[in-house]
Amino acid sequence: MDPQPQKLNATPDGLLLDASRLGLVTDLYELTMAAAYWSAGLADRSATFELFFRSLPASRSFMVAAGLEQALYYLMNVRFADDDIRYLRGLAIFAHAPAAWFESLCEWRFTGDVWAIPEGTIVFPNEPLLRVTAPLAEAQIVETYLLTTLAYQSSVATKAARVCTAARGRGVVDFGTRRGHGPQAGMWAARAAFIGGCVGTSNVAAAERLGIPPLGTLAHSFIMAIEDEREAFESFAAVFPDRPTFLIDTFDTLEGARNALRTLHRPGQVRLDSGDLAALSREVRRVLDEGGAPDVKIFASGDLNEYKIDALVAGGAPIDAFGVGTELTTVADAPSLGCVYKLVEVAGGSGGEAGETGRIKLSAGKRTYPGRKQVFQHLGPDGRFDRDIIGLADEQLPGERLLEQVMRDGQLVGPTPGLGSLQERCRTQLGRVSTELLAIDGHTTYPVEMSDALEAEFQRVARAKERHGGTK
Amino acid sequence: MDPQPQKLNATPDGLLLDASRLGLVTDLYELTMAAAYWSAGLADRSATFELFFRSLPASRSFMVAAGLEQALYYLMNVRFADDDIRYLRGLAIFAHAPAAWFESLCEWRFTGDVWAIPEGTIVFPNEPLLRVTAPLAEAQIVETYLLTTLAYQSSVATKAARVCTAARGRGVVDFGTRRGHGPQAGMWAARAAFIGGCVGTSNVAAAERLGIPPLGTLAHSFIMAIEDEREAFESFAAVFPDRPTFLIDTFDTLEGARNALRTLHRPGQVRLDSGDLAALSREVRRVLDEGGAPDVKIFASGDLNEYKIDALVAGGAPIDAFGVGTELTTVADAPSLGCVYKLVEVAGGSGGEAGETGRIKLSAGKRTYPGRKQVFQHLGPDGRFDRDIIGLADEQLPGERLLEQVMRDGQLVGPTPGLGSLQERCRTQLGRVSTELLAIDGHTTYPVEMSDALEAEFQRVARAKERHGGTK
Repeated sequence: MDPQPQKLNATPDGLLLDASRLGLVTDLYELTMAAAYWSAGLADRSATFELFFRSLPASRSFMVAAGLEQALYYLMNVRFADDDIRYLRGLAIFAHAPAAWFESLCEWRFTGDVWAIPEGTIVFPNEPLLRVTAPLAEAQIVETYLLTTLAYQSSVATKAARVCTAARGRGVVDFGTRRGHGPQAGMWAARAAFIGGCVGTSNVAAAERLGIPPLGTLAHSFIMAIEDEREAFESFAAVFPDRPTFLIDTFDTLEGARNALRTLHRPGQVRLDSGDLAALSREVRRVLDEGGAPDVKIFASGDLNEYKIDALVAGGAPIDAFGVGTELTTVADAPSLGCVYKLVEVAGGSGGEAGETGRIKLSAGKRTYPGRKQVFQHLGPDGRFDRDIIGLADEQLPGERLLEQVMRDGQLVGPTPGLGSLQERCRTQLGRVSTELLAIDGHTTYPVEMSDALEAEFQRVARAKERHGGTK
Repeated sequence: MDPQPQKLNATPDGLLLDASRLGLVTDLYELTMAAAYWSAGLADRSATFELFFRSLPASRSFMVAAGLEQALYYLMNVRFADDDIRYLRGLAIFAHAPAAWFESLCEWRFTGDVWAIPEGTIVFPNEPLLRVTAPLAEAQIVETYLLTTLAYQSSVATKAARVCTAARGRGVVDFGTRRGHGPQAGMWAARAAFIGGCVGTSNVAAAERLGIPPLGTLAHSFIMAIEDEREAFESFAAVFPDRPTFLIDTFDTLEGARNALRTLHRPGQVRLDSGDLAALSREVRRVLDEGGAPDVKIFASGDLNEYKIDALVAGGAPIDAFGVGTELTTVADAPSLGCVYKLVEVAGGSGGEAGETGRIKLSAGKRTYPGRKQVFQHLGPDGRFDRDIIGLADEQLPGERLLEQVMRDGQLVGPTPGLGSLQERCRTQLGRVSTELLAIDGHTTYPVEMSDALEAEFQRVARAKERHGGTK
């Protein structure tokens, strides 16, 4: 192997992300604000930000939290390389930024405390998925990366949970890397899809890094290259004799099923990837059964989503497992989750008073609640969740406290959980959700209450702001 | 700085992509097929694949090609590390794969020829954006990464072109990293958005790597941290005195405009990020003009897309520039482009005859044309493109030949173009497109013809297949 990657003229690093160069992976305004905080003597003032989404995407009655591990990796490793600092110094916009601020970036790292809701948990609007308490400028700089990380993986984990719900126990495999928003999206999607209930991924790198089962079949190109379909199946089975999967729709699906039957001498699988899957699966099943191969499974793929799978399963299509790609990895019906990262508390007032003071925002439609919060997930007498309560962090309220401390002073509090346990947590959580909430076309509103103490704190801060606040 | 990234328990590398570990970033079936080709003695047979999309996403009458540079970087650097090969050897599915195949992966690299349509070019369904001629197994393995790379960047470049068309010359800034499908998507989106016409990006890492202007303002949190809005503006302007941008909607937008006016002693900008942008921009403009600051610009953001910008501009809203995030980076209305990578030719027949033989697929709705192709872009007498012709690679047809050779034997033919020249190419191409085709709600069908020779070749291969082919 070459010791060094080959370089392109225009972009030497292929725009891949380097773990040692994460500092600049942020929005410019995080850095301008950090410099301005520094100049104003506020950079080191302790601040708390909370990351949450304001509303559910269409057709969703809940979300599944995911992405925390990648967020923690970032917080542990984000640094500014010398080249990064040199670049910032050279930008016209930073012409008046103090030299000491640039110097501070050399040793800069994240030193804060982080609380988070575990991955695989069912979450709702306004619930903090993550709470960061850190020196103000530090907490500010990490905003962009935290948002993209938690929002995307939560979106995919939720989509996977929906697709697996529709599949009613049939296996669902992530096939989406080729449709992802770049190759890294495919990696993260494979992880989140597994948390949400997928049984494996076609992405070999993700499978290797994460210990997920890598799954796959063969492509039309293989049949086309060899031309004779049966010969292609035999060539494939010669190398992959254990439960091979034959793609049978390259030329004629039923003839493909018959060719598979002629080749399979033990249990295997056939894959449909086009056409009317409901009708074809029945005809193929009949060919297989009549050919004495009732144990050969039918795997289906091709622009599937939770609605199509629900219809196939409800209609009794004899399909044993599904591959889902585009819709899963791009979260096609809800490709973004409007996560925000909001300042809720700063140590001391602007005048320098002691103590923590809550912060709120009053922009139209974008109100935020002040102070550090906790989410209490309440299990009803029937063993199903019946409400969440968002309260102040130190309140005692009924239900399980969802936010746990995951970092102290920039260090992990303990090891991060393995992916298997996160999938198991998600399965357990989904098992405690009402049928109405699970419905894939659902618009059920789950009760999420603000505690009395939190409401009172909002009113208190709003009144204080009115008397002394921002618009004077 | 720490010499080594800190490690998490569960996923040591944060699931970032390492340029030295790109081999496994592919679908499992690419590798199983590669092993089966090897065993069947077909791995080294020269094959040609073409990458294209079959249809346009909704509301689009054209696409802008992008992502080639990242695809080339991958092809230059894709390798299998020893750990990758060890992992594959340990998988049950590869239990019967020949030892020599695993050994071959140690020295494996991409050695093929690549032809491609330059980034920034207007493209249409069925036109090969990329054509790979390489040993069959090599050409197969690279499919997944090529698809995700070209499809995503082309989608973003197209979206950017639409947004910039709607902005009618006003600057559009990419603000989307926080909404991207992971942080790498934000990097690639910044690049593609610039090709499509954006003037800058908020993503500092992308700006640094690509030489794009980094642009940004300040966030609500800055105002909330300092509490007093005017004091916040003054703190910011102390460090960023040259044309600072003040976010004025944290508490009350018009009062925010007055506070900005009190602080700005030279040209600057105010930013609206919520509420009715059409009405607010007018009121803010009035406050600024009456306050003697006609040179202070208004920048608007907040869930914008091409339709909202079109309405704002058409309605005469006095907005000077726009920030677009979510819709741009997630390509919200068309988050995937159904690109495919199809085998069109293999050297020799399955029986081992000499010469190249075209390959076709007949699956329902998924027909492919055989042979290596070229796209001819024809300029009409009015200086506008009037049709494309897809022909065989060696045909002489009217129009500019769009596919150029970019790799020979796995090496770049020449340096890749700088991003500025790609943006310029896109601007030139868009300038030669008809107004109807440019319309953002357009459903205009641009004429794309298959040459007579290509149609004849399809018929010839189909007849040959019928006589001797895959369903015997």
